[in-house]
Amino acid sequence: MTYTEKNNLFSDRHIGTTSKERDYMLESIGYDSMDEFIKAVVPANILRKEEIDIGDQKTEEEALLELDKIAKQNKVFKSFIGQGHYNCYTPKVILRNIFENPGWYTSYTPYQPEISQGRLEALINFQTMVSDITAMDLANASLLDEATAAAEAMTLAKRVSKSKSNTFYVDENCFENTINVLKTRAKPLGIEIKIGSVEGAKTQECYGILIQYPGSDGLIKDHTDIVSYIKDQKGIAVFAADLLALCLIKPPGEMGADIVVGSSQRFGVPLGCGGPHAAYMAVKEDLKRSLPGRIVGASVDSSGDLSYRLALQTREQHIRREKATSNICTAQALLAIMAGFYSLYHGKEGLIQIAEKVNSLTCILKENITQLGYKVENNNFFDTLVIHSNSDTSAIHSRALENEINLRIIDSNSLGVSLDETSSIDDIEILLKIFSNSTVEIKDEKVASIPADLIRESSFLDHNIFNEFHTETEMLRYIRRLSDKDIALDRAMIPLGSCTMKLNATSEMIPVSWPEFSNIHPFAPKDQLVGYQKLVDEMEEMLALLTGYTGISLQPNAGSQGEYAGLLAIDAYHKNNNEPHRDICLIPKSAHGTNPASAQMVGLKVIPVECDSEGNIDIDDLKEKAKLHSENLSSLMITYPSTHGVFETSVTEVCEIIHSYGGFVYIDGANFNAMVGLCFPGSFGGDVSHLNLHKTFCIPHGGGGPGIGPIGVVEKLKDFMPSLHNEAQRVGPVSGTDWGSASILPISWMYIKMMGTKGLLDATQNAILNTNYVASKLKGHYEILYKGKDDLVAHECIIDIRPLKEKAGIEVEDVAKRLIDYGFHAPTMSWPVAGTLMIEPTESESLKELDRFCEAMIKIREEIAEIEDGKASIENNILKNSPHTAKVLISESWDHDYDRARAAYPVSSLYDKKYWPPVGRVDNVYGDRNLICSCPSMEDYE
Amino acid sequence: MTYTEKNNLFSDRHIGTTSKERDYMLESIGYDSMDEFIKAVVPANILRKEEIDIGDQKTEEEALLELDKIAKQNKVFKSFIGQGHYNCYTPKVILRNIFENPGWYTSYTPYQPEISQGRLEALINFQTMVSDITAMDLANASLLDEATAAAEAMTLAKRVSKSKSNTFYVDENCFENTINVLKTRAKPLGIEIKIGSVEGAKTQECYGILIQYPGSDGLIKDHTDIVSYIKDQKGIAVFAADLLALCLIKPPGEMGADIVVGSSQRFGVPLGCGGPHAAYMAVKEDLKRSLPGRIVGASVDSSGDLSYRLALQTREQHIRREKATSNICTAQALLAIMAGFYSLYHGKEGLIQIAEKVNSLTCILKENITQLGYKVENNNFFDTLVIHSNSDTSAIHSRALENEINLRIIDSNSLGVSLDETSSIDDIEILLKIFSNSTVEIKDEKVASIPADLIRESSFLDHNIFNEFHTETEMLRYIRRLSDKDIALDRAMIPLGSCTMKLNATSEMIPVSWPEFSNIHPFAPKDQLVGYQKLVDEMEEMLALLTGYTGISLQPNAGSQGEYAGLLAIDAYHKNNNEPHRDICLIPKSAHGTNPASAQMVGLKVIPVECDSEGNIDIDDLKEKAKLHSENLSSLMITYPSTHGVFETSVTEVCEIIHSYGGFVYIDGANFNAMVGLCFPGSFGGDVSHLNLHKTFCIPHGGGGPGIGPIGVVEKLKDFMPSLHNEAQRVGPVSGTDWGSASILPISWMYIKMMGTKGLLDATQNAILNTNYVASKLKGHYEILYKGKDDLVAHECIIDIRPLKEKAGIEVEDVAKRLIDYGFHAPTMSWPVAGTLMIEPTESESLKELDRFCEAMIKIREEIAEIEDGKASIENNILKNSPHTAKVLISESWDHDYDRARAAYPVSSLYDKKYWPPVGRVDNVYGDRNLICSCPSMEDYE
Repeated sequence: MTYTEKNNLFSDRHIGTTSKERDYMLESIGYDSMDEFIKAVVPANILRKEEIDIGDQKTEEEALLELDKIAKQNKVFKSFIGQGHYNCYTPKVILRNIFENPGWYTSYTPYQPEISQGRLEALINFQTMVSDITAMDLANASLLDEATAAAEAMTLAKRVSKSKSNTFYVDENCFENTINVLKTRAKPLGIEIKIGSVEGAKTQECYGILIQYPGSDGLIKDHTDIVSYIKDQKGIAVFAADLLALCLIKPPGEMGADIVVGSSQRFGVPLGCGGPHAAYMAVKEDLKRSLPGRIVGASVDSSGDLSYRLALQTREQHIRREKATSNICTAQALLAIMAGFYSLYHGKEGLIQIAEKVNSLTCILKENITQLGYKVENNNFFDTLVIHSNSDTSAIHSRALENEINLRIIDSNSLGVSLDETSSIDDIEILLKIFSNSTVEIKDEKVASIPADLIRESSFLDHNIFNEFHTETEMLRYIRRLSDKDIALDRAMIPLGSCTMKLNATSEMIPVSWPEFSNIHPFAPKDQLVGYQKLVDEMEEMLALLTGYTGISLQPNAGSQGEYAGLLAIDAYHKNNNEPHRDICLIPKSAHGTNPASAQMVGLKVIPVECDSEGNIDIDDLKEKAKLHSENLSSLMITYPSTHGVFETSVTEVCEIIHSYGGFVYIDGANFNAMVGLCFPGSFGGDVSHLNLHKTFCIPHGGGGPGIGPIGVVEKLKDFMPSLHNEAQRVGPVSGTDWGSASILPISWMYIKMMGTKGLLDATQNAILNTNYVASKLKGHYEILYKGKDDLVAHECIIDIRPLKEKAGIEVEDVAKRLIDYGFHAPTMSWPVAGTLMIEPTESESLKELDRFCEAMIKIREEIAEIEDGKASIENNILKNSPHTAKVLISESWDHDYDRARAAYPVSSLYDKKYWPPVGRVDNVYGDRNLICSCPSMEDYE
Repeated sequence: MTYTEKNNLFSDRHIGTTSKERDYMLESIGYDSMDEFIKAVVPANILRKEEIDIGDQKTEEEALLELDKIAKQNKVFKSFIGQGHYNCYTPKVILRNIFENPGWYTSYTPYQPEISQGRLEALINFQTMVSDITAMDLANASLLDEATAAAEAMTLAKRVSKSKSNTFYVDENCFENTINVLKTRAKPLGIEIKIGSVEGAKTQECYGILIQYPGSDGLIKDHTDIVSYIKDQKGIAVFAADLLALCLIKPPGEMGADIVVGSSQRFGVPLGCGGPHAAYMAVKEDLKRSLPGRIVGASVDSSGDLSYRLALQTREQHIRREKATSNICTAQALLAIMAGFYSLYHGKEGLIQIAEKVNSLTCILKENITQLGYKVENNNFFDTLVIHSNSDTSAIHSRALENEINLRIIDSNSLGVSLDETSSIDDIEILLKIFSNSTVEIKDEKVASIPADLIRESSFLDHNIFNEFHTETEMLRYIRRLSDKDIALDRAMIPLGSCTMKLNATSEMIPVSWPEFSNIHPFAPKDQLVGYQKLVDEMEEMLALLTGYTGISLQPNAGSQGEYAGLLAIDAYHKNNNEPHRDICLIPKSAHGTNPASAQMVGLKVIPVECDSEGNIDIDDLKEKAKLHSENLSSLMITYPSTHGVFETSVTEVCEIIHSYGGFVYIDGANFNAMVGLCFPGSFGGDVSHLNLHKTFCIPHGGGGPGIGPIGVVEKLKDFMPSLHNEAQRVGPVSGTDWGSASILPISWMYIKMMGTKGLLDATQNAILNTNYVASKLKGHYEILYKGKDDLVAHECIIDIRPLKEKAGIEVEDVAKRLIDYGFHAPTMSWPVAGTLMIEPTESESLKELDRFCEAMIKIREEIAEIEDGKASIENNILKNSPHTAKVLISESWDHDYDRARAAYPVSSLYDKKYWPPVGRVDNVYGDRNLICSCPSMEDYE
């Protein structure tokens, strides 16, 4: 052919360096070729024996075209199914400027508050919205979905209840999938679930109760009595409540609820076939220090100015290993932010108007359907009717489908209809036509819906901020102003060890907005989800190839959930194999805290394994402990490459030891970006792994979520993967819908398709090369911890700041904050080793950016040397005072012995691209002591 | 009904104030109601007598749904038509982060360079790309389309040629529409167009020649000889050239071209049924000071740092009234920026690869089609073949349509095929199948295409900047970095008099990206454009209602083109009416410079009319001049409300005078935002008006284009509107395609539909109220010029800075630049009166933002008072030194007698939202003396 089709390869856009630059980098670290280099890094017993074939690289346009064909196989019917998932309108200004704006979706979890004030403010708005609407004292910054939030509430209640009961009582009127997830989660913890009418709770000793409000049958009841009864029994009252309904009806906080959970999806987040969207949890004051997940709180910065940060981080954020009570370490930040902005855009009046519209339409439907001779089961309601369709049920249902409408089939005699923000009088007309099989003239007389004593009287969203941004211009500017405060990937490298902040390409993101993916109800009939099923099948197939496993489940919607699901599979296998006693889980001391926390949740006993001075697993200790616990050995959890960023050669031996005692090996896939195409955990000894699609496979971090944490398992564990419809009843669901966060799967699908076999391998190799290049440049300036053979690291490296403490008084935080002055997000701080920084540049960074980062680190080292040499003060120096805000730099007083300009512009390239931190160093202790987790009032502020 | 559908009105999102705030504002200026206020502002003889009905307000979702139905009536076939319009891929990172990013599309023309460095750099990249690829010395920052660019070249050539000939020779191989526009433009100027073979130019005296390169028949020829011949005759050689072709073939600059024009559409800008996209013009060094349109040039700022600004502004930007040689006062900035980024993203190698792919596929097509027995007329080519289809022509064409493919029908015996970036080997297969009516196995042997002596040997895009951003990460960050330098509507009010910078709502912008609008070739068969036709019909109908005219033409794609088209209609009427001598156009001295320039281009003689001290037309002078020229009176051009922002009561009388002498009244619609729904120019005496859809009807300014300038005319002028297919040959086309910038019409359509009758009227009233509120707040601090009755202004107000000159030495520029320190874009400077600022806040601004602006203006007045009082130096003061960059504020030396903090944060709200100008005050004189209009090299910079 005189002509080549592929001259615009996506992999060249994704990978940051050119082949010429790569040659230079290889040479600078002493290798002649990539092959030679990779063989030096990756142990031969790990390196792939044969190549896999994931397909050719598709261009962006080709991949989009192929995905479009898949998308078009979904049928976008209008769903009136409800059950926690509702149609809604995403205000377009929010859609375009948040959901489709890399300034928002590529940002990281706001662990570095100084460069995260924008998203922190957005999240505290969300928290305020939730606690206001539920009438609770404070709320967290979101949880994964309503079902898992309910499960978190169940365990939180267990921890705080003073009742001796082991029973958690569940309203039979709860959403079915919530109940299923509760069952999964209760079992390993020995919690007994009792299901029955709310009133039935009085006949049953229990440590807590979960009430759906309004009920899944649409009913609204005053639960004040039962709450007070439960509390008298030292129990905890949990509500799962609908935020839109609460705008009109008495909120759970006013019925005495201790905990309220629910979904904020209908506040402007598309259905997306079940996710992602943000669940919420709100609690009363006395539970605030037990609240799981992330909480944003107000504090002050070094100038005493208001600033936000994650509150109480030491408690939950840094999961406390085996003492953990939850393994949650993520949230649905981007979706919580969207829901928060939705409430800001509408304000109280707007939300009430929307709720009233939904309720009025439901009234009209109720009246007219009754006129048609159908009985409506619930005599009050907000948006949902249960209709006794009796012998007409199947005919009505058929007619609905002919009209591209989905109703909820409750049983052969009744149908459910839930209205929403997008419903119109035209919809009512069509619904009546479907029920009556003829045209009906709509009558509109006021019918009773919300009982008088349950009409909401208390106000909410009274903080000024909910009244400032009701016009598009003001909203747009507020969104821009907040995003300008933050560093995301659209500004600079985010060199976070273990978090793999790589390019989230636009072509990967675009399909997420397609209606064929976003406007689908998760409980729509399967024949409408053919496109989704194909997407899932292809993803499973590709991930199986890439991991070397035979079974893949996409249900877990976070890495922590993946871990949990993986361990559940192992545990279920042993039980099914009549070895229920196998409950020992070995975990090296270097593991991420989530590992033991997950093991704990599955009911396993965690036995720590020692590590040697190089951070590698101590094989002798492992052997000894495996042998000691051989009878009861369930599993070993390791991370590969290790959490220290090293390809341990011993991993195959480690796996053999565990297998020899009948245990399974869980390989944490957090570092999978170092392995794609190079080595396959399912081939070198792993039995289960979870992957973080939001790390390795390009789902953006969204400021702290969404994520997807699928698991891969070997053949014999295949039947024990989590499932919503697990007929064998082996392992139930770990999240509320079949495919977790289905609507963002296209991102990873696009990435894999556009990279193809070669591109994926190139990415991995370059990720490793970039890290070794950085490590080699920093060597001599800083000590690099934990190297593998030939002094090489994997895809991340750890530099030691501890030696700088003694002479210069410099701690890891000082370097991290000083990097902000250079325009960088800090590397991972003090993990896995206190006093260190872990750097992972990923394959997407350019040589120029890597050099810019190294330049900053080396300059900072020189600044530290000045302290060591006595040229700069040990207390008042350029690092301790960092980051420097413009406000401080431009104030009249300047009592430092370094220049203003040197503080702001330590390297000259900053004159062209300076990021200005909006606040100085944030005071964590002050914030935790004076906990304020909703928008501060003027008094709070003073 | 218990239920209201419309509870989320778009007009509440579009209009910046609440009804409560409006009451407060009305009260503060002394009115009880909006009605009373409007009656006080708008003269009774102007105010509408009856209401119009443009329909109910539709919600954003309803309007989008309705437009979607219209869009779906277009058929998106694959077009191989070419002729200056080609399919291409917009890199998604550019699509999302420029085309769909309000930071780019809502910005204004970069007249204020200090807050426009981002888009200025983007535009100088475009200029560099153009001058490099064409091998010319410098290029401008874009023109409207290829056809009008050719017309500009024709008149430029006339101005600079020393030949005495009046003939412009046009290559018969030029695109047909280019020739048609040339004819329209030549006629009133007395230029004679001769059309013939390029070689034929030797037999004909001419002052210039236009050569299409490659020709519309696909041929590539070396025109060095003819160029040299023409130049020997003192003529000017103009090329219309294809940028992608020039990546492979010898560029016009190397054949001696004086001027090169063309389209940059295929560099990543969607077809959009003809527009908008950016045309270009490049010239040799000796013509640089005659180049029409905007030119970006490098200069230095107050610190001596590199900075960009519009060069030679005094020459062309401020159109020189009757001495003008062109009426161009806009560009296609947003589209030029996209094309520039496209070239940055691909770089030289990438562009060559794309061009080679296109050419190779054309080679394969040529070879195989020849094998099928069809003769290809052109024996060489880049991307276009003319195929002798003979008697098969109509059968082939039918088969093409069956396959959803458009070919170019040249005549009954031949078809044209042009390939492009999106073409693939699959397309070739289908094309061959269409030609052969059977499946053909593709043969691939190298055939001749580009003659050896025409292969490009010179390099291009060698500046470093074309090699820095080839990965998506780097491109994304560069886009972000540039947009962070600018103030657009997503940051702050842009209070530009006469430019109506109102909200460009997301729902208005979204449909522009829909494939049914963006992927349509302008010359596709009409039955594929049913949706577009409907959109155009509805727009025409709505605009007719709103203006009171009976005929509307959407062809002009800028206000200046609208003016030109309107005057052409008047002139054609007189000629058709056997009064060809009517060539006097009266224009008040207060008019915008474009008015006389347009009159000039139509061949009219401009007679200025005096204004009184209030800026109103001097009726006596008007009467006198109208009478004096009664025999030859063609028309009067006025602006309403006047350019001074006043509703002149005399306008009806003025119109009557002109009509009484047989003249027409042209009412410039630049200020139409003060009239929508309130008064109708077609009813109170106007005969023609142009509207600026990019002012009144929400098309964003895009940093200086696109725009649409439709005209409305009274019944008797209807037959004289511009038309591509004007059978009567009365007035030809004024732009290259039927509907000018068709693909952005959805923006205005959405706006009108979502506002409805009531919303549009509310917007107008609020625009006027906001301005009067601002004027009233500033009164007492500044002198307000030109008020109407009751001291009221219309939708803009002029404040006088001249009185501050004498005592404080302050000029209008000082106030404008100091406003940047307060985070604002300056109002319009020194227009229509030197030494003044003209403020137009529009209806979209919130009360808070209006107050913030007034606060800034009042504070600045206080700062001026300090100079007047001798408290601050007259040379070295906070205004003269503005804007203050962070670099200057943070430098060690500070020799001013005001504080750094006061310079940066004169009001405390700036601590939370500070905009940092990237450069200090830009030196215009230096830049014009040292003209550099492409990316500066290191030497230039030093």
